[in-house]
Amino acid sequence: MKIGIIGFGGMANWHRETISGIDGLEIAGIYDIKKEREDFAEECGLHVYKSREELLADPKIELVLVATPNDLHKPIAIDAMKAKKNVVSEKPITLSSADLQEMIDVSRETGMFLTVHQNRRWDEDFLTIKKIYDEHKLGDVFRIESRVHGAHGIPGDWRQEKEHGGGMVLDWGVHMLDQILMMMKGQKLSTVYATFTNVTNQLVEDGFTTVLTFESGTEVLVEVGTNNFVSLPRWYMLGQDGTAVIRDWDLSGEIVCAAGSDEKDVVPVRTAAGLTKTMAPRREDTIHRYELPVVRSDIREFYRNVMAVIRGEEESRIKLSEVMRVMKLMEKIFESAKSKQILDFEK
Amino acid sequence: MKIGIIGFGGMANWHRETISGIDGLEIAGIYDIKKEREDFAEECGLHVYKSREELLADPKIELVLVATPNDLHKPIAIDAMKAKKNVVSEKPITLSSADLQEMIDVSRETGMFLTVHQNRRWDEDFLTIKKIYDEHKLGDVFRIESRVHGAHGIPGDWRQEKEHGGGMVLDWGVHMLDQILMMMKGQKLSTVYATFTNVTNQLVEDGFTTVLTFESGTEVLVEVGTNNFVSLPRWYMLGQDGTAVIRDWDLSGEIVCAAGSDEKDVVPVRTAAGLTKTMAPRREDTIHRYELPVVRSDIREFYRNVMAVIRGEEESRIKLSEVMRVMKLMEKIFESAKSKQILDFEK
Repeated sequence: MKIGIIGFGGMANWHRETISGIDGLEIAGIYDIKKEREDFAEECGLHVYKSREELLADPKIELVLVATPNDLHKPIAIDAMKAKKNVVSEKPITLSSADLQEMIDVSRETGMFLTVHQNRRWDEDFLTIKKIYDEHKLGDVFRIESRVHGAHGIPGDWRQEKEHGGGMVLDWGVHMLDQILMMMKGQKLSTVYATFTNVTNQLVEDGFTTVLTFESGTEVLVEVGTNNFVSLPRWYMLGQDGTAVIRDWDLSGEIVCAAGSDEKDVVPVRTAAGLTKTMAPRREDTIHRYELPVVRSDIREFYRNVMAVIRGEEESRIKLSEVMRVMKLMEKIFESAKSKQILDFEK
Repeated sequence: MKIGIIGFGGMANWHRETISGIDGLEIAGIYDIKKEREDFAEECGLHVYKSREELLADPKIELVLVATPNDLHKPIAIDAMKAKKNVVSEKPITLSSADLQEMIDVSRETGMFLTVHQNRRWDEDFLTIKKIYDEHKLGDVFRIESRVHGAHGIPGDWRQEKEHGGGMVLDWGVHMLDQILMMMKGQKLSTVYATFTNVTNQLVEDGFTTVLTFESGTEVLVEVGTNNFVSLPRWYMLGQDGTAVIRDWDLSGEIVCAAGSDEKDVVPVRTAAGLTKTMAPRREDTIHRYELPVVRSDIREFYRNVMAVIRGEEESRIKLSEVMRVMKLMEKIFESAKSKQILDFEK
């Protein structure tokens, strides 16, 4: 199967590397508006199309990857489907649920497959915390915290501009919210509250904190920071019976669970001005420590599934209904941050 | 100066130890309803009064410490002031702002000094983060997070009962909110949002998360958890120029600040399923790391100030107007958690 790539920036190059490890998938060529990216493509041994139209007119191409700035995903994906190409769009698929609905309609009309590169569903930190959740290793979970913290501000290109779909909700929120909704599958998300930061950039949010309350009462915090010189853990999950932490991308972390009651013999913590038993550490003999049950993954499964869907052999791993739910959730987050209100979502 | 202690539990014993290091202050004796606490007092060489009345009638006593369950602070403090004793109450001084107003009125009528043991104003973690804030070491601060996490549940005595003033807002919130209001002195607190947990106890909140937004826009998170088997840092503060973290009671932590721009040469982090420059760590040559400017303190200053106030030599370090503001804030937190709304406070 031949794939054409429209927009050949950093992320598209990452696709190039991934695709090079997949049997049966080959890059027909790329199109980019920038000379230096065309030159780089040629250095990689890729054919360069003269125009988007030329690429879409190539009958060899069955699948198109759209890896342009966010605001261009929709028009290019629609053109591609109308040219009878199946489409993988980079995330976010587009900037609003209304735009997404238009794209879904074109997919239905043309019979072309449309999907989104929700690559972080394959991230091992996510799969590991999801396994802990799914296997009920902490008992009933009452709180989940998912954070990514950096200290570079936000990238200094179109990602700083609202009209191109910049800002951290569309950039990282789209992954993190999708992960949470996958983890909490089957549960309604009752309410949404969000606040934004504008520390290094006034045009789009350079960070956000959102609190999602699910119908079971489980509270989920999703947070992105880009001016955080010390990072809090990537994942922090609290259950009735214990706590799990994944500290970093390197999957360092642990699970700590209660080993029976500890009401007796708590050694108080003494500070300069007080003492506390309530906040004293647990004695080691009253807890169990476990290593993280690390889940390994292969991102090439994404393209293998795309190919199988196009051949009619599998269902898509990424459903457009899921993508639509995340899109509506992001819209609710913008609305909450603007109105400074806790908003109902699916109740 | 002689002090009488009413209620001789764990916290009162802590006062006994503190007072033993203060020149000019001496314990006249104690009163407790429990035989074993009377026995323990005698082992400590303390006189035991037969009744609260007998203690309050002792003309030697100038100052009374009320260290009973929270709901008894008010009636005992009022009786003591009417018996012409100055009063130190354990925190929280009482259970509502209306009750506190009654106590303040009695203090005015009797001319007796009334104060609260806000001992954690002297805690070194607090004084250290406050110094970082006051000295503007991180530039403009946009977010502060103050957490205490334990994994013992809540103490299995009156602290589990609402009518005795149990629950983590009155137990730990009263300290942590007071610390934040001291740190942000002079700024109005615009809005309050809070959620409670009931993980190990259904009668009172065994944890809470509250988000306070100040008029400058600074967002402050104050959180107590009692089923957290891994703790997040005690303090986490984000400023325009850097981040400070105090990890634990032992004052481990650091300050990390930007050392110029780092737009170039960011080494992306590669995970199983993606890559990111935005969330990659800063290169060491683009940051400065500093040790925490640890502030040492002496909790005996609390009683020295109380004695000086009674002698007319100093102003109280703990103002009843500050205590009232915290009490009203705690009431707002209960209201927010119940109504699930973001509530205006001082706007």
